[in-house]
Amino acid sequence: MSYMANKAKSVNKALEEAVPLREPVLKIHEAMRYTLLSDGKRVRPMLCLAACELVGGHESTAMAAACGVEMLQASSLILDDLPCMDNDSLRRGKPTNHIVFGEGIAILASDALIALAVQKAATLTLLDVPPERVLRTVQEMVKAVGTEGLVAGQAADLAGEGMSADSNTGLEHLEFIHIHKTAALLEAAAVTGAIVGGGSDEEIEKLRSYARCIGLMFQLVDDVLDVTKSSDELGKTAGKDLIAEKLTYPRLMGVEKSREYAERLNREAREHLQGFDLDKVAPLLSLADYILNRQN
Amino acid sequence: MSYMANKAKSVNKALEEAVPLREPVLKIHEAMRYTLLSDGKRVRPMLCLAACELVGGHESTAMAAACGVEMLQASSLILDDLPCMDNDSLRRGKPTNHIVFGEGIAILASDALIALAVQKAATLTLLDVPPERVLRTVQEMVKAVGTEGLVAGQAADLAGEGMSADSNTGLEHLEFIHIHKTAALLEAAAVTGAIVGGGSDEEIEKLRSYARCIGLMFQLVDDVLDVTKSSDELGKTAGKDLIAEKLTYPRLMGVEKSREYAERLNREAREHLQGFDLDKVAPLLSLADYILNRQN
Repeated sequence: MSYMANKAKSVNKALEEAVPLREPVLKIHEAMRYTLLSDGKRVRPMLCLAACELVGGHESTAMAAACGVEMLQASSLILDDLPCMDNDSLRRGKPTNHIVFGEGIAILASDALIALAVQKAATLTLLDVPPERVLRTVQEMVKAVGTEGLVAGQAADLAGEGMSADSNTGLEHLEFIHIHKTAALLEAAAVTGAIVGGGSDEEIEKLRSYARCIGLMFQLVDDVLDVTKSSDELGKTAGKDLIAEKLTYPRLMGVEKSREYAERLNREAREHLQGFDLDKVAPLLSLADYILNRQN
Repeated sequence: MSYMANKAKSVNKALEEAVPLREPVLKIHEAMRYTLLSDGKRVRPMLCLAACELVGGHESTAMAAACGVEMLQASSLILDDLPCMDNDSLRRGKPTNHIVFGEGIAILASDALIALAVQKAATLTLLDVPPERVLRTVQEMVKAVGTEGLVAGQAADLAGEGMSADSNTGLEHLEFIHIHKTAALLEAAAVTGAIVGGGSDEEIEKLRSYARCIGLMFQLVDDVLDVTKSSDELGKTAGKDLIAEKLTYPRLMGVEKSREYAERLNREAREHLQGFDLDKVAPLLSLADYILNRQN
């Protein structure tokens, strides 16, 4: 089994255990599990674990943080799909959370996943991670959620629908969205892994820069796939950005230039990893390549 | 100025400073402030500060936690009023958050308030509160939000609308809702105040029991006011519970028995405060009396 498939398997097991199906309010746990455990690429948890190992920590130490960031991701996906946001009924080939459980339960499940992410991270003290580090981990996680992260990105996204593609501020606006909506959580994944693993401030900041590059790259690839692939290939509604007149990279700079930009970001991401142990850095290099070359 | 009015004033000042109106995504900050700074009774922050002082801490030490719990409260009010929840258009005499800002921004503001509450609490380390205590404070806060708190209460509430009033399980279901939806956050307020102030485990648990009593009492009084007061007197739509066929205490046991139950809880709450310094306990006794006797 490949390094990444192996990691994804341990992450899935830990996520499965983190949200037991339990009474009372069984329906909330079902809704949380529905989105959290559905087939995901587990990019953020893998990044968290790899960052921890890169700075000399052990995978098991970072697992709670890795689960936490994936919970935050699941929480944001539930909100993204709501009728008052992107109004999407299909995600990863399955009906979206509010379609299955109703809007009320979907919104509550999204909140509960944020709360659980922090609770999960706080259990790190049981592994003898010093409380200062655990607290820093929690801070990075909620920063990625709030007005410096996902919330800011999604609000800017809401404000940007129908925005003119020839607007001078188009690219600036688009980068703002993706830095907050996509890169912030990848940063949190990398940075919390490095914090928990005992990385130095310099190492932590290098990993933050790397994660920001792959975050933007991730979104570029996503935008390109939306206009070049079918719904079947993607497991979600293709061409949706065009219909919603969303600001996207292909719309602003064309498909070819978008691809070039993604490749440039991949090179930049690699540069931020210079100085780290060459063996240990391999997983992060493949993760970047994987994001660049993914087909769905 | 009375003790409580004085406390409310310092809380309002701290809340005002905690959410500055700032770009980018100004609208999110406006929406957060709209609900957070609207005329509230500040019961939870006052409880937090009083609990801190009761165990020998200084008010200023608990202010960040006090602001945090009020942010969690504001976050839950925004969700409560959404069309897919209670569908209310009036709160404290003003249009509800989603009426003013739209559903998308309202939901995002609600999330951002949870994130900010945790971020605010984390600043306690700057006041030399030991990181273990800060982490415990954060844990109590998110526990009050998630599947052991607000989310569970709201989910049960959603499931309970239209529930038969002669159901045997009616009272049990109702208490479940209020223990999670109302009491959990009051518990978090009292307990975080006591943790930050350096209280012993015994003191912390006494305050938790006291807060649970006043939490249930708060809801009993709320239910009674809904059927005995006008919308003008309440600053929100009166009689709404009846129209929605909500499970309430007056519906299950009548107005008189509901009032008696509230008085019994007030006596119980006082009993949990036995053993504390008599002078310092006065604010918590008046807070309980205030909740019992409030008219809106």
